[in-house]
Amino acid sequence: MNKQISSIQNPFIRQLVQLKDKSRERKKNGLFLIEGEREIMLALKGGYGLETILFNPEIINYEQLNNLTTKQLNTIEITAEVYQKLAYRDTTEGVLAVAKCKEHNINELNFKTENPLILVAEAPEKPGNIGALLRTADAARVDAVIIANPKTDLYNPNIIRSSVGCIFTNTIVTGSTSEIIEFLKSKNIDIYCAALQASVNYDTQDFTRPTAIVVGTEDTGLSDEWLKNATQNIIIPMEGDIDSMNVSVAAGILIFEAKRQRRK
Amino acid sequence: MNKQISSIQNPFIRQLVQLKDKSRERKKNGLFLIEGEREIMLALKGGYGLETILFNPEIINYEQLNNLTTKQLNTIEITAEVYQKLAYRDTTEGVLAVAKCKEHNINELNFKTENPLILVAEAPEKPGNIGALLRTADAARVDAVIIANPKTDLYNPNIIRSSVGCIFTNTIVTGSTSEIIEFLKSKNIDIYCAALQASVNYDTQDFTRPTAIVVGTEDTGLSDEWLKNATQNIIIPMEGDIDSMNVSVAAGILIFEAKRQRRK
Repeated sequence: MNKQISSIQNPFIRQLVQLKDKSRERKKNGLFLIEGEREIMLALKGGYGLETILFNPEIINYEQLNNLTTKQLNTIEITAEVYQKLAYRDTTEGVLAVAKCKEHNINELNFKTENPLILVAEAPEKPGNIGALLRTADAARVDAVIIANPKTDLYNPNIIRSSVGCIFTNTIVTGSTSEIIEFLKSKNIDIYCAALQASVNYDTQDFTRPTAIVVGTEDTGLSDEWLKNATQNIIIPMEGDIDSMNVSVAAGILIFEAKRQRRK
Repeated sequence: MNKQISSIQNPFIRQLVQLKDKSRERKKNGLFLIEGEREIMLALKGGYGLETILFNPEIINYEQLNNLTTKQLNTIEITAEVYQKLAYRDTTEGVLAVAKCKEHNINELNFKTENPLILVAEAPEKPGNIGALLRTADAARVDAVIIANPKTDLYNPNIIRSSVGCIFTNTIVTGSTSEIIEFLKSKNIDIYCAALQASVNYDTQDFTRPTAIVVGTEDTGLSDEWLKNATQNIIIPMEGDIDSMNVSVAAGILIFEAKRQRRK
């Protein structure tokens, strides 16, 4: 018999609502919420520790949770009302997990290859953009995603949602821009910074060596610190009337050019 | 002295609210709303006819509208309350225009080049995705964007916003999938369909001939009609755990590979 919770006033549920809504609570407790069976399975695959599974039996039954419950997790049945209180998506997945945050320290980053391809994003802010970057990074199976000067908590529900779980499938580390530049240089990794004012086309460069592709925000681009420390600043030639491109599109073009070169 | 409107009950204002909110009203009247000076200027540049300019003098003054008012347009001062009623963006641009819809008939499409590069999207639905596709198309200055089996009115305010005005800078036509395939074949344009189940890598193909790159929706991909009529179905090799990529990222990778080949 599973434990059951039917009141949104239950103290544990109230704590979970805080985890959903507040970055500060996630950091304080080292915990966050995952919604959806697929996302939960990807988190397990990505080595995330789970503490509790909550499910609403009106949407998903216990047998459907087999994959999850074999992990001998604490499982709690919740009512539709409690589920609504905790869910952040429009879809009704019926299952949530309380998971443990990981450390994302740049100094813990090691590569399985001698020739890594890395995507660096400086200060990305919009969860939707971060999610799209992580999807691109997953598709290209880059060796790491590095977020410089992060502005948004990685475990923001909107990042998890818009990444369609790619937050769990990528190796992600964060650090200050200075720390990351020092790290890349110490590992002899070439730094290519996407810049609207660069004079060199991206497709003239050799990305087959250890390579970091660095993108900034759409509004302000990359900081001078990145541009000054680049092996080469590169531009995607723009011929239109508007000189901005969605950051995840720009990252996709650059990363997949590197992949193309590496397949040759 | 400009005409002034201070009541949200004014019949003209009520008609404009309908234009903002209802695709049916836009179609019936052949009119739509544009918000923001930059977007209005892009629409003028793109050959759109404007009927009326509305501005709130608390946000933007008449002199700042010079670029617009030299066009001898009907100009109306509106109060903050009326402006709020008509505006759909969070930013306070202070200026709106009533513009005339264009025809987007596939049969009217002509190319200035013998060697066009075209982006085709089948049944895109989310305004944000359509906007991002149009930004990519603008950056690459493709010769046309063709929307097959459109699901969403092009003059949806969210498309205008998310395209950052690229809806006005691109040549856009629409039609049924059958009409478009027939058109492309009649013009001897190669058809490359992005498909997750394709066996040929996109970067092995020659996109320097007249080329249409065709993308479907993230959920269901392209219809069989496209896949069967392709010169070649192509895949962006995905190595990650998730077999989906944002459609505007995929389109960016494919279109900019064509641009890269054409620069060589």
